[in-house]
Amino acid sequence: MKVELVRANASDADVLFAARVSTQGEKTLESAQDAETDASRSKGLINYLMRDRHGSPFEHNSMTFYVQAPIFVFREFMRHRMNSYNEESGRYRQLNGTFYVPAPERNLLQVGKAGAYNFLPGTPEQSELVTAEVRATSTAAFESYQRMLDAGIAREVARIVLPLNIYSSMYVTMNARSLMAFLSLRTTREGSHFPSFPQREIEMVAEQMEDHFARLMPLTYESFNGNGRVSP
Amino acid sequence: MKVELVRANASDADVLFAARVSTQGEKTLESAQDAETDASRSKGLINYLMRDRHGSPFEHNSMTFYVQAPIFVFREFMRHRMNSYNEESGRYRQLNGTFYVPAPERNLLQVGKAGAYNFLPGTPEQSELVTAEVRATSTAAFESYQRMLDAGIAREVARIVLPLNIYSSMYVTMNARSLMAFLSLRTTREGSHFPSFPQREIEMVAEQMEDHFARLMPLTYESFNGNGRVSP
Amino acid sequence: MKVELVRANASDADVLFAARVSTQGEKTLESAQDAETDASRSKGLINYLMRDRHGSPFEHNSMTFYVQAPIFVFREFMRHRMNSYNEESGRYRQLNGTFYVPAPERNLLQVGKAGAYNFLPGTPEQSELVTAEVRATSTAAFESYQRMLDAGIAREVARIVLPLNIYSSMYVTMNARSLMAFLSLRTTREGSHFPSFPQREIEMVAEQMEDHFARLMPLTYESFNGNGRVSP
Amino acid sequence: MKVELVRANASDADVLFAARVSTQGEKTLESAQDAETDASRSKGLINYLMRDRHGSPFEHNSMTFYVQAPIFVFREFMRHRMNSYNEESGRYRQLNGTFYVPAPERNLLQVGKAGAYNFLPGTPEQSELVTAEVRATSTAAFESYQRMLDAGIAREVARIVLPLNIYSSMYVTMNARSLMAFLSLRTTREGSHFPSFPQREIEMVAEQMEDHFARLMPLTYESFNGNGRVSP
Repeated sequence: MKVELVRANASDADVLFAARVSTQGEKTLESAQDAETDASRSKGLINYLMRDRHGSPFEHNSMTFYVQAPIFVFREFMRHRMNSYNEESGRYRQLNGTFYVPAPERNLLQVGKAGAYNFLPGTPEQSELVTAEVRATSTAAFESYQRMLDAGIAREVARIVLPLNIYSSMYVTMNARSLMAFLSLRTTREGSHFPSFPQREIEMVAEQMEDHFARLMPLTYESFNGNGRVSP
Repeated sequence: MKVELVRANASDADVLFAARVSTQGEKTLESAQDAETDASRSKGLINYLMRDRHGSPFEHNSMTFYVQAPIFVFREFMRHRMNSYNEESGRYRQLNGTFYVPAPERNLLQVGKAGAYNFLPGTPEQSELVTAEVRATSTAAFESYQRMLDAGIAREVARIVLPLNIYSSMYVTMNARSLMAFLSLRTTREGSHFPSFPQREIEMVAEQMEDHFARLMPLTYESFNGNGRVSP
Repeated sequence: MKVELVRANASDADVLFAARVSTQGEKTLESAQDAETDASRSKGLINYLMRDRHGSPFEHNSMTFYVQAPIFVFREFMRHRMNSYNEESGRYRQLNGTFYVPAPERNLLQVGKAGAYNFLPGTPEQSELVTAEVRATSTAAFESYQRMLDAGIAREVARIVLPLNIYSSMYVTMNARSLMAFLSLRTTREGSHFPSFPQREIEMVAEQMEDHFARLMPLTYESFNGNGRVSP
Repeated sequence: MKVELVRANASDADVLFAARVSTQGEKTLESAQDAETDASRSKGLINYLMRDRHGSPFEHNSMTFYVQAPIFVFREFMRHRMNSYNEESGRYRQLNGTFYVPAPERNLLQVGKAGAYNFLPGTPEQSELVTAEVRATSTAAFESYQRMLDAGIAREVARIVLPLNIYSSMYVTMNARSLMAFLSLRTTREGSHFPSFPQREIEMVAEQMEDHFARLMPLTYESFNGNGRVSP
């Protein structure tokens, strides 16, 4: 899983000027352009917005990520409809034969009931089986794909045999409010007000996005964590 | 590909009462509740809305479809962010081993340049190759999936070897404006103002949705075709 | 304030079939078309979805309301971007001179701090002042509007003198998930997980919408209340 | 009308890297981070995207505007649901008594039929009437507002007598695709593929936004104009 921050226009100051227009109107413009802030009052205002779910001030910013992940991760990711996406195309391009194989530390056993599964480590034999099956099936599928391409079959037809663990790449742009909704559903954390049970692989992507967010908007991020990781 | 209309609350009358509130305000309510319409004036009003791109009156309706199609079709479908989706889950359920195999009439050769490809029939040998490759790869992948499940591996891990041509199922709800945007991009028709080059398999789904739409909202549908199949 | 339910395609059964496709795939179709449900299991499933914030199954339905309310209410209403709107137009139509005047029971005094105001009754003198001012200003503005129209001035210019308490009318269509988000922000209730401080007049509209929702989708409504009135 | 560009992260290069991920996948990342572009090939690609309505690459950017305009303009503006808004609040703040009065060059006479009105200059007498009516009504309404505030009435109640021509202020954030949809509907231009008949005052705001857009994304802007000003 690879996540790079390509472009960002996102800072805590963007939240503040948008919030202050409610109470200060035209007087906010100067401070918006200066991006100067009074740290302690700013922190209080952001915390109030987060706690009482005034979400719109968290939308006046933008983060663009480049993400490389398997298609089964992208399938979950793209259900988030507030974001902008462009993805590598199996119709326009011959795909690379790069496949995700679960690492040895990936938990393989699912316990508990539907909607609240927990995952535990597999035995060494189970881990070896997964590695062997995933490698063999990926390789066989990619060879089939290449045989069809070699025979002149259109890419959009040949690619249908490729498995869900093939890596793809995309650009995705979102604002902080949408990112917090994503993190709330796609990470598992102690202290979250609402429990989430994401698949580990999308959580690995989410964690990298979270690191960028924490650096860009530290007050917003701290407040998100302090209020149960609920998107405002 | 299977498309069933599960629920609909969609008629040309819904477009009309929404449009008439602009000019008639509170007087529209009675006619909205009667759903009675004057056919010829209605046709003219719908055509005016479509032609001059007054899109919002086409949103006060709702169609829910059940769709069975391969995952590579769903991947394109779910890029349409104005719709509501719920899909069969490979995490919550053991998947059926049902796979899409291109029919003999499926064109296999891609000609022309990127962004405007055309497709031509393959030779009998090419067609046989595709059938053989797709069947063999699908079968092998599903056997691998089952071996992992039999060994106690979690469904969400085992499913990553399944190919993009496995069938899935979903419910999708949309309004007529969103449906027209979908049809505009996912069908190829003479007389379309903007050219589209959809993959044939999603077009097969779109055509079935279009048939339902034509029956439910005949004036809207006629006007959509008469104005270059541009979503208003 | 007037709210009428014009069209609805909304029932608890719509939530259930959409949720069950996750675990039952193609087997849900028959039950979706029958709309039959097992009451106690249904209640449990809806409650689970609401509590753990699985929001998408609450989107496969549609409610269209006709609303008459003053423009200052519509200004707040239309900030909810997930809905579809068509409103009476001051450009296309000569507006009626009907204005909202606060009733005697409307609280007039604001106490407490920004973001968490409370409202208390005014004195009889204050109440009389408000009635007199609102009536006189509305009447004077409407006379000015009419003088301009009589002099041949375009409606879109003349209407700019009309006050925010003039009544307008609109159709608005939304699904249950969006309606719950609206109710969560636009009503004040004991037991709400997140506090909201709506202006009383939009709450009067919201309460009427809530009554319709409670009748159409009783299990969903009960679960919404039972889980702190947080939109899933 | 006042429009200031507060923040922007928008360039033609953002369109290009997003588009190229379709055909180049992981190879685009380096160029995305360099933001270097080959001018003539870039122009061709942007034109192709615009013409064939590949809209998503135009979403990976962000522009935040501060806008001061009368409420009747904001009412139309906020119907555009793809944007993010925060506006000065008449509940949280005592409003300034600044009102829009049509300038002498504002056309006052509406001719033609509904949906396609044209506007012509009024006579000097009509122009004087409008100025006098708008000034007098605005002043009287603001005095009424102040009398209620002086008597201790809550701001949210007192403000309901204020007219639609009172100035408000807001921050609005959008991407280039949404901005083009806005410009397409809110400006009148020769060469537009679809005709639009905006109220002059929102067009005055749109024209200032268009100037910023033209400077930030010159290739995109040129292509928008060259393809009939249709949002892709």
